[in-house]
Amino acid sequence: MRSDAVARRLQEMGASEGDYVSIDKRGEHYQGVLMPHHSFSHPDVVTLKLDDGYNIGIAIDDHTHLRLVEKRSPPESREGSIPRDGTKPSIALLGTGGTIASYVEYQTGAVHPATTTEELALSVPEIFSLCNVQPRIVAQKLSENVVPADWQVLAEAVAEELREGAAGVVVSHGTDTMGYTAAALSFMLDSLTGPVVLVGAQRSSDRPSSDAGLNLMAAVKTALTDLGEVAVVMHGTPSPEYGTIHRGTKVRKMHASRRDAFQSINALPLGYVEDDVRFVGPYRGAGQGETRARTGLNTNVALVPFYPGMPPHDFARLAQGKDGVVVAGTGLGHVHESWVPVIGDLVEQGTLVVMATQCLWGRVNLNVYATGRKLLRSGVIGGEDMLPETALVKLMWVLANSDKPAADMKANLAGEIAARTLYEAYPGQKKYM
Amino acid sequence: MRSDAVARRLQEMGASEGDYVSIDKRGEHYQGVLMPHHSFSHPDVVTLKLDDGYNIGIAIDDHTHLRLVEKRSPPESREGSIPRDGTKPSIALLGTGGTIASYVEYQTGAVHPATTTEELALSVPEIFSLCNVQPRIVAQKLSENVVPADWQVLAEAVAEELREGAAGVVVSHGTDTMGYTAAALSFMLDSLTGPVVLVGAQRSSDRPSSDAGLNLMAAVKTALTDLGEVAVVMHGTPSPEYGTIHRGTKVRKMHASRRDAFQSINALPLGYVEDDVRFVGPYRGAGQGETRARTGLNTNVALVPFYPGMPPHDFARLAQGKDGVVVAGTGLGHVHESWVPVIGDLVEQGTLVVMATQCLWGRVNLNVYATGRKLLRSGVIGGEDMLPETALVKLMWVLANSDKPAADMKANLAGEIAARTLYEAYPGQKKYM
Repeated sequence: MRSDAVARRLQEMGASEGDYVSIDKRGEHYQGVLMPHHSFSHPDVVTLKLDDGYNIGIAIDDHTHLRLVEKRSPPESREGSIPRDGTKPSIALLGTGGTIASYVEYQTGAVHPATTTEELALSVPEIFSLCNVQPRIVAQKLSENVVPADWQVLAEAVAEELREGAAGVVVSHGTDTMGYTAAALSFMLDSLTGPVVLVGAQRSSDRPSSDAGLNLMAAVKTALTDLGEVAVVMHGTPSPEYGTIHRGTKVRKMHASRRDAFQSINALPLGYVEDDVRFVGPYRGAGQGETRARTGLNTNVALVPFYPGMPPHDFARLAQGKDGVVVAGTGLGHVHESWVPVIGDLVEQGTLVVMATQCLWGRVNLNVYATGRKLLRSGVIGGEDMLPETALVKLMWVLANSDKPAADMKANLAGEIAARTLYEAYPGQKKYM
Repeated sequence: MRSDAVARRLQEMGASEGDYVSIDKRGEHYQGVLMPHHSFSHPDVVTLKLDDGYNIGIAIDDHTHLRLVEKRSPPESREGSIPRDGTKPSIALLGTGGTIASYVEYQTGAVHPATTTEELALSVPEIFSLCNVQPRIVAQKLSENVVPADWQVLAEAVAEELREGAAGVVVSHGTDTMGYTAAALSFMLDSLTGPVVLVGAQRSSDRPSSDAGLNLMAAVKTALTDLGEVAVVMHGTPSPEYGTIHRGTKVRKMHASRRDAFQSINALPLGYVEDDVRFVGPYRGAGQGETRARTGLNTNVALVPFYPGMPPHDFARLAQGKDGVVVAGTGLGHVHESWVPVIGDLVEQGTLVVMATQCLWGRVNLNVYATGRKLLRSGVIGGEDMLPETALVKLMWVLANSDKPAADMKANLAGEIAARTLYEAYPGQKKYM
């Protein structure tokens, strides 16, 4: 709710949501469209959509000057009233929390997730020109608090929306663990009849430089294609130029804060979104059947990176009793030789041990060096070009859903293993002149 | 040793090392300079240096045709006899093993480290035109088997060589853990009077496409500059174009097999090596005093990546009783909220807990989100823009050498923390047209 003081000032000057207003505060001048009040914003904060499409939240105090610049027709929609148009396709917008729908709490300065998916949709009203939006809250969490049980609920919700006629599904998600969720949905969802697109923001949507708007628009456009895969759509560059579509099993957050943090690792992106969506590589098309969710997970697993000096008993302590372990080894997939017998024992006790590489790029190859050969002999499964994180999520899923888990870990189930890696898929470091 | 059969065939045609010969085998034609026999090569293998500078090992059998093309003056040096020239500066070449000095064992097809640093030097005789080479074996290990105790021996050896007058030190090292060793030397070595350059190869030096030659030449050139830091020098691109000089605390192997696998993370490279060495950023120059090695390490530490679903008790099991722990959290440095009290308990028991980001690029910032603030309140140290691996090595060193370890973890000791990260330091993913 807006504070009485701010509500009165807006009323006195005759401004309501959708009108074009200007705000002057401590020498700074802002003008834009007055947006609906977010339930998580401070009562004294007014949100404007600036001319460049970015939203900004401004705390109104006695030194702030507000002016009505232009009375405009009421916006297509108001808070809580999403417009519907029977001629347009329907997209389900599933909210899980995260920065894209977060608001700065002005008392503490901390960022909190927003409460409603409506607020998210209404903050980017351009999407209503493309489709009907069916908002639905699935979770309200910062993504570091997402757990595998959330993936299961989300996968069921996605399958339900597609079965009930959604042309595609957009999932708003915190960026921190978005890659893990995308991988989980990729393995869980079968016979997709439409795209499943995860989207987030690196800056919250009431901050001036938020990437939420472009990302959400690009995600909705992707959700309206014939893609039959799980994808992540985020800024392709730091500027609002285009969105990049990443395959859910190949994507990783590679920067803590930049808008172009997400990269496809060991793969080209699936495509790009500017005015239109353009796919650049092969993708699985949407099917005609019925989308199913197989959400079983065995979470009795671990992901363990190897480093010089890591004692084999530290590894054993973590791995003992697990049903599966992913080791992020060095280079082609190596560990200190003292680990080899420990791994051998684990395998004998029935633990699936998968080797990935901490390099992230490239492919595990246990046939080149003596260490790799020893590991192969002790029963380690080479993780090919899978990301360690994707290998971990896949292990959870395969252990719960497959009767031949070792063979399935080596097989390509959802685009996570490529037979050949394109040369262009490694960015390398540019020469700085 | 060469097999009698091969030695006899070379003798019969009057060919000795340094002569230009041709070999025809199963339709393939090779010609180049006959190289000294490597002690780890199969007795039947002959090594040629091809015209493009690459070496190749060819197994001689009854179907191989050898021919002496041109009798050449004996090479500048012969096995076991490194040339000396009093007018040139001296470089210490310390061998530790790894691919750069590895040879394919033709019986098993496995790759083994070479035995002598002389062999390495002699396989790239061009370096003798630049400097005198003092070879010394410090270890003979594939780098996945290098342990912190090896870093200590190596640091002592480096300091000794510099004190005894070497203009610079080149360390040949396996690439798998070269980044860790570079970080360790960076913290251990003080008042460097010359450059310390780690170098390796992604393809062993008797393979046709080996990068050993360019890398070793570039490393030697770097070791002859006025740099007073620990650096890694490796191919800058997949082709033999130039070497890139990386700061030892900022470098990471980012690809399992490519020659340009090494990248400076959150930093520009220090410079490039083509015909000459060109520095592009600020670097610490060599000092005039005496190089010291402070090699104490506390290895009672752990590096733990967080992932969704990782139970706090798994973390506790690994972290309990450690003197320091680096957590590779998500995004700006986050973990599931259930970890916060466990971390708080650890800190209270005196464990130093440092937060890094599994994104690798970007900077930890615990002030943005509620999760980060909770972590800060429980005593977590933000790892700034340090690589998780560098933070781990630094933790080992700081715990053994500092009387204010928490403060020193936050301070920049060896270029591992930059006050500001250059925009250009993130490669991002190029648009694929």
